Amino acid sequence: MGAARLIALDWGSTRLRAFLLGDGGEVLATRQSGDGAATLSGAEAYARALAALVGDWRAERPGVKLLACGMVGSQYGWREAPYVRCPADAAALAARVLPLDERFSIVPGLVDDAARPDVMRGEETQIVGALALHPELADDAVLVLPGTHAKWARVQGGRVTGFATHMTGELFALLRQHSVLNRLMPADGSSPASPEAFLQGVAAAAEEGGLGHQLFAVRTLGLFQRLASEQLPDYLSGLLIGHEITRELRAAAPRIALVGDPALCARYARALAHLGRPAPLQLDNTAPAGLWRLAHTMDPTRC
Amino acid sequence: MGAARLIALDWGSTRLRAFLLGDGGEVLATRQSGDGAATLSGAEAYARALAALVGDWRAERPGVKLLACGMVGSQYGWREAPYVRCPADAAALAARVLPLDERFSIVPGLVDDAARPDVMRGEETQIVGALALHPELADDAVLVLPGTHAKWARVQGGRVTGFATHMTGELFALLRQHSVLNRLMPADGSSPASPEAFLQGVAAAAEEGGLGHQLFAVRTLGLFQRLASEQLPDYLSGLLIGHEITRELRAAAPRIALVGDPALCARYARALAHLGRPAPLQLDNTAPAGLWRLAHTMDPTRC
Repeated sequence: MGAARLIALDWGSTRLRAFLLGDGGEVLATRQSGDGAATLSGAEAYARALAALVGDWRAERPGVKLLACGMVGSQYGWREAPYVRCPADAAALAARVLPLDERFSIVPGLVDDAARPDVMRGEETQIVGALALHPELADDAVLVLPGTHAKWARVQGGRVTGFATHMTGELFALLRQHSVLNRLMPADGSSPASPEAFLQGVAAAAEEGGLGHQLFAVRTLGLFQRLASEQLPDYLSGLLIGHEITRELRAAAPRIALVGDPALCARYARALAHLGRPAPLQLDNTAPAGLWRLAHTMDPTRC
Repeated sequence: MGAARLIALDWGSTRLRAFLLGDGGEVLATRQSGDGAATLSGAEAYARALAALVGDWRAERPGVKLLACGMVGSQYGWREAPYVRCPADAAALAARVLPLDERFSIVPGLVDDAARPDVMRGEETQIVGALALHPELADDAVLVLPGTHAKWARVQGGRVTGFATHMTGELFALLRQHSVLNRLMPADGSSPASPEAFLQGVAAAAEEGGLGHQLFAVRTLGLFQRLASEQLPDYLSGLLIGHEITRELRAAAPRIALVGDPALCARYARALAHLGRPAPLQLDNTAPAGLWRLAHTMDPTRC
C-alpha cells in the first residue's frame, strides 16, 4: 500500500465505514462494521470499535491522522462536536472540528436555526465532498441526500445556506412494517419492483390533500385489487418520495444533484423526472472526499 | 326492563358494544366486550362472541331483532356486506342491509369510488345517527369522526356525497411508539397535557412544507430544549391533527360537526377554533341512534 495520509471514518447510527486515503486523497482500502453509534455507549465502547476495525492500519502507520464524521459526534456519541450554524462552508466546519486527541478529530454537524431548528450530522461532510468533486455545484444548487432522514440542502456561493430534513425513509419502514397498510402486502423483500406503481404513487402525491389521507389509498387500492399485492410497497414508496419532492420543489430549486446510495438515488431520479425536474448528477457516498477536503482545509501542509 | 325493540351492535375492529333499545329508540342497557372483529376468525367465533355478550337478552326476548354495523361486515368479518356507493342516504343503506338470518342483519359500509377509492364501515351508521339527532345537519355539513382512521364526510340533501379517510390516529401511535421521535419523549401515558404545545403543532401544520419534514421538528425542538420532553407528544398530536384539518378545510366546508370520543372531539374542536373554524356541535357515539334509524327505515311497522 502507498503512503496513507488519512484514515477517514464515516461513523453513522448503524454502521462504521473506514477509508484509508493516499497522498492525493485516493481510496487505498475500505472496511466497515456494524458498530454504528446507535449500538455503542461510552467512550470505551467507541475506542474498542475503532481499534477492532482499523487498529492494524494505525499500528502500521504511526502518526497517521483520523477524521470522523456522523453520529459519532452527537450528544449521545463518543463526544459531542457542537453544531455549526448555517450558512457554513468547508472552512467553517474545519475551524470547528473537535480534537479528541492529537491524531483523532470529529467533524461537527450543521444546524439550520430557524423557529424550528433542523440538524444534520454526516451529510455536511458528504456535501463538502460533492462540492470538492463537482465545483460547478458550489455556485447555486440543491443537494438531495436520500435516506432514513433525507436532507435537501441549498448551496450558494460555496456555503450551505439552509436545509430541510424529511423523515421519508423512516416513515416508509414504519408503515411497511407496523401499519394497517402492510396487511395486504407481501412479506418484506419478496416482491419484484413495480416502477409503474411507484410512479402512480409519485403522481398521487403531487395532488392536493394531506399525506395522512393519501396513504390510506395504499389500503383501498389493494382492497379493490386496482394494484396487485406486490405493487403496494412501490406505490407507498412513490407516495412518500413524491410528497418530499413536490413539497421541496415549491421552493423553486435551481440545479439538483443526488448524493448517496445508488439504488435510492435512482428512485429519486425517476420521481424527479416524472415531475419534470430531471437531476442528471448522481453521486455515490462522497464522505471520503469530504473528509479529505476537510482534513486538507484544517492542515494544508499535512494532507 | 321495558319493551325492548332492538339489540343494536356497534361491532368494530377492537370492541363489540351492544345497546338494548326500547320502544322509542331509547337506550335501556349497554354492554361491551373485547371481542372486536380483528380478534375473531370464522362464523363460529362471531356467534360465540355474540352469545357471550347478549345471549341472555335474546333468550328473555324471543323474536327481538339485532342489527350490527362495523367491521363485522367486512370481507374479513362474519360475512361481507358489500359497500354501498356514495352518494347514499339512510334508505340506500337500509335497502342493502345483509340478513344473516331472520333476526340478525349487518349494515353495509360506504365506498367513495373515485380514482382512488375510500371506504368506511361503522361511521356511515354514526352519520345516520347524527342526522337523526340533528336534522339541521342534513342539508349541508361536514361530519368529522376522529379516530385511528378519521373520516371527513360531506352531507348534502340528507345524503353522504363523499368522504375522505385520514390515518391520523394510526400515524400518531406509530410515531409515538416506534419512531426516532419517541426517544426524547416520556414513557406512554406519563405526561400531563400541554394545550400550548398542541396548538404550536397545529400552527406549524398550517404552514407550507411536507408532513415528513414538519415531523422532524418534534425531535429538534426536544433536542434544543425549546419544548420540554412531556410537551412533545402534544406537539406531535397537534401537528398530525392540524395537517388533517388544514388539508380538509381547503375544500371550504360549510357547517362542521364532530362525532365520537368526547376527549378526542375536544382536541379537534380546539384545533379547529385555533384555525378560525369553530365546530360548536360535538356528539358522542351516535351508532345506537343510527342503528335505530336504519332498523326503522327497513321496517317501520316493527320499530
